[in-house]
Amino acid sequence: METPGVIPFDFVEGGGIASPLGFRASGVACGLKKSGNPDLALFCSNTPCCFAGLFTSNLFPAAPVQICRERCKTRTSVRAVVLNSGIANACTGENGLADARETARLAAEALGTEEMDVLVCSTGRIGVPLPMEKISSGIRAAAAALSREGSTDAVRAIMTTDTRPKQAAVSFVLGGKKVTIGAMTKGSGMISPRMAPAVPHATMLCCITTDAAMENAVLSEWLTEAVELSFNRIAVDNDMSTNDTCLILANGASGAEIAADDAKGAAVFRAALKALTQHLAKSMVMDGEGVSKLVTLKITSAQNPADAEKCARAIAHSMLCKTAWFGCDPNWGRILAAAGYSGAVFAPEKVSMDYDELPVVRGGADAGTQEEQLANVLKREGGFTIRLDLGAGDAACTMWTGDLSYEYVKINADYRT
Amino acid sequence: METPGVIPFDFVEGGGIASPLGFRASGVACGLKKSGNPDLALFCSNTPCCFAGLFTSNLFPAAPVQICRERCKTRTSVRAVVLNSGIANACTGENGLADARETARLAAEALGTEEMDVLVCSTGRIGVPLPMEKISSGIRAAAAALSREGSTDAVRAIMTTDTRPKQAAVSFVLGGKKVTIGAMTKGSGMISPRMAPAVPHATMLCCITTDAAMENAVLSEWLTEAVELSFNRIAVDNDMSTNDTCLILANGASGAEIAADDAKGAAVFRAALKALTQHLAKSMVMDGEGVSKLVTLKITSAQNPADAEKCARAIAHSMLCKTAWFGCDPNWGRILAAAGYSGAVFAPEKVSMDYDELPVVRGGADAGTQEEQLANVLKREGGFTIRLDLGAGDAACTMWTGDLSYEYVKINADYRT
Repeated sequence: METPGVIPFDFVEGGGIASPLGFRASGVACGLKKSGNPDLALFCSNTPCCFAGLFTSNLFPAAPVQICRERCKTRTSVRAVVLNSGIANACTGENGLADARETARLAAEALGTEEMDVLVCSTGRIGVPLPMEKISSGIRAAAAALSREGSTDAVRAIMTTDTRPKQAAVSFVLGGKKVTIGAMTKGSGMISPRMAPAVPHATMLCCITTDAAMENAVLSEWLTEAVELSFNRIAVDNDMSTNDTCLILANGASGAEIAADDAKGAAVFRAALKALTQHLAKSMVMDGEGVSKLVTLKITSAQNPADAEKCARAIAHSMLCKTAWFGCDPNWGRILAAAGYSGAVFAPEKVSMDYDELPVVRGGADAGTQEEQLANVLKREGGFTIRLDLGAGDAACTMWTGDLSYEYVKINADYRT
Repeated sequence: METPGVIPFDFVEGGGIASPLGFRASGVACGLKKSGNPDLALFCSNTPCCFAGLFTSNLFPAAPVQICRERCKTRTSVRAVVLNSGIANACTGENGLADARETARLAAEALGTEEMDVLVCSTGRIGVPLPMEKISSGIRAAAAALSREGSTDAVRAIMTTDTRPKQAAVSFVLGGKKVTIGAMTKGSGMISPRMAPAVPHATMLCCITTDAAMENAVLSEWLTEAVELSFNRIAVDNDMSTNDTCLILANGASGAEIAADDAKGAAVFRAALKALTQHLAKSMVMDGEGVSKLVTLKITSAQNPADAEKCARAIAHSMLCKTAWFGCDPNWGRILAAAGYSGAVFAPEKVSMDYDELPVVRGGADAGTQEEQLANVLKREGGFTIRLDLGAGDAACTMWTGDLSYEYVKINADYRT
């Protein structure tokens, strides 16, 4: 649907990290995973890219996170990102930092560029050192395999407990030039970002590429905006990772330049980036460890935005709510209890709640809908929406979360990639 | 072991709520539970009792919590407590309040006393009205069954997902008079108290009786102290209940008076009460929903007490840590990650950790102990202790928690008492 004066954008069928012009990608198996599955991904631009990154606010940032943060502060451009799965390179001390730098150097060597032009991401088990010989041969193989068609190989190589690759691309036409934004993401457990305005952070590994030309500061501002409304609004479990990283690289290969004061260009880029990241964020929840249903939480009429978010997070993190959803038990009392201990301020007797189109709570008590009817909403294919109105103001917050199943316990009681 | 000048105390074999002189108790089945199991408990003193209570800080306090809070403020003495399981009488509006008052009135009538002399507790499903006819006949039966030997009947009637009754008593001799403190408690899920100094609260149902004579203000102070170091230091899941209640009644039947300025008496009473509540708190975790092992968390060298507690709670609530413990996976990275997002302030490279006697982390990285050795600690009968030293100061916090198993999901995905 097109609104006059607003540039429309579309999802690109089969799109991914290498969809924007001038990017190539690859993924290979180098032996980090016992399963023998792909575990090393690489993507690069033919030319230098402006870039920005958001990282975990965990006090134990992994070595690659420390390296990326440093390069975000000191570099004006980069060209490539190398990612491995199976080993997180977190809590590995000085050796871990040296390994992360060496990983970047090896990739730079294979690509004919400089170490400082390469960013590094890792995901997997914490506290285990990277086997650098395997990394080294993996990087050589990945560099040789780089191609415009390598998006899916790359995203498959960053999966851990993910059951399916999560990638997408969107495109639009600006001033006669076609601009594409591509992205790949991984993560299905240890997914629980936290608001930390002073310390921007993301919530898993996500790499975004675009062939638009943009300045670093603009990229950073719009990435932060998009992440706040997407990855920072999902929760699979209550655990924030040591490795959360979200990167965006812009190489300008489309010939389209977008500046912050270019109203039309800024509007379509920001809208397209938000749609792309929200699509991937919801995909992450749906592929969350053991998740069988997507639950959309819409908190309304909170006293202020912080209260709305506290309330949404308390419900999204509640083990009792999550197990009830798994059992298709409409047990709304657990949701009210979570709202009640969330720290949000409201009057219980003004609270109302709905599951999809059905009233559940009115005036803080049972709305009288039959339990069987409510249970049927919980059984709906694709999940359902909980609307919780606190009756205390006009602030709102939307979050996406999932249920807690036997499968989550199984995956995490026996996790060895 | 006796220290000169310190009065020793002992646990009473088979002790419970009716162990102190002048108390009687009973428990009956009145049809609130579909299983037909006992669901209504009553205990009372032959004479008026000084008393104190701590309650949930949830914004949706159940009707009986509201009634008890009111009576704690306005009454100087009470004589009896009536408790039901199966229905929480929470989120039930004005009708729920009327039902809670009527429950107290019916018990008072059966005991020949006044409504305001009776306190009320409920536990079970939220949002369901109490069937007052069943309650009424249950109270008459319970009053008729009151006896000095009724402790076990009473504690059995307050169980929900608990698999065993949790009760104990301690006694000591003060000035030639034998003083007894008895207690019963229930709760194995929705167990996650939070510090809220301005709003004292407990974490489940716990009733304590004593035949010492003490003033309300002293009872309140020492109850708060004991609860902070016991029930407020355990977590089964991350859910704070709407019904948490901890009550203490003192009838003076032993003839021993204990005042705040009576050094010897105060010391032994406080020590005995702490031992009693810690014993029951640990019993609650061990009987926690699906819990297969007790995990003791000892956080040391935190910058301040709040940081120590934040860190302990983040680990106790982490679904990834809890599932790893269930799987006997020594995955210490998940514990560091939880410490890292807890909000506690420390330098990662100063952190060390031990599982029982084995070093796990030194200087924020792997201490080099073989994974098989660590896994064996996790398999120890009765659980194990995690010592986490933050290297940031001299504050400490101890908490008790459990693992997260298939059984927890099973119990809570299909909870109908």
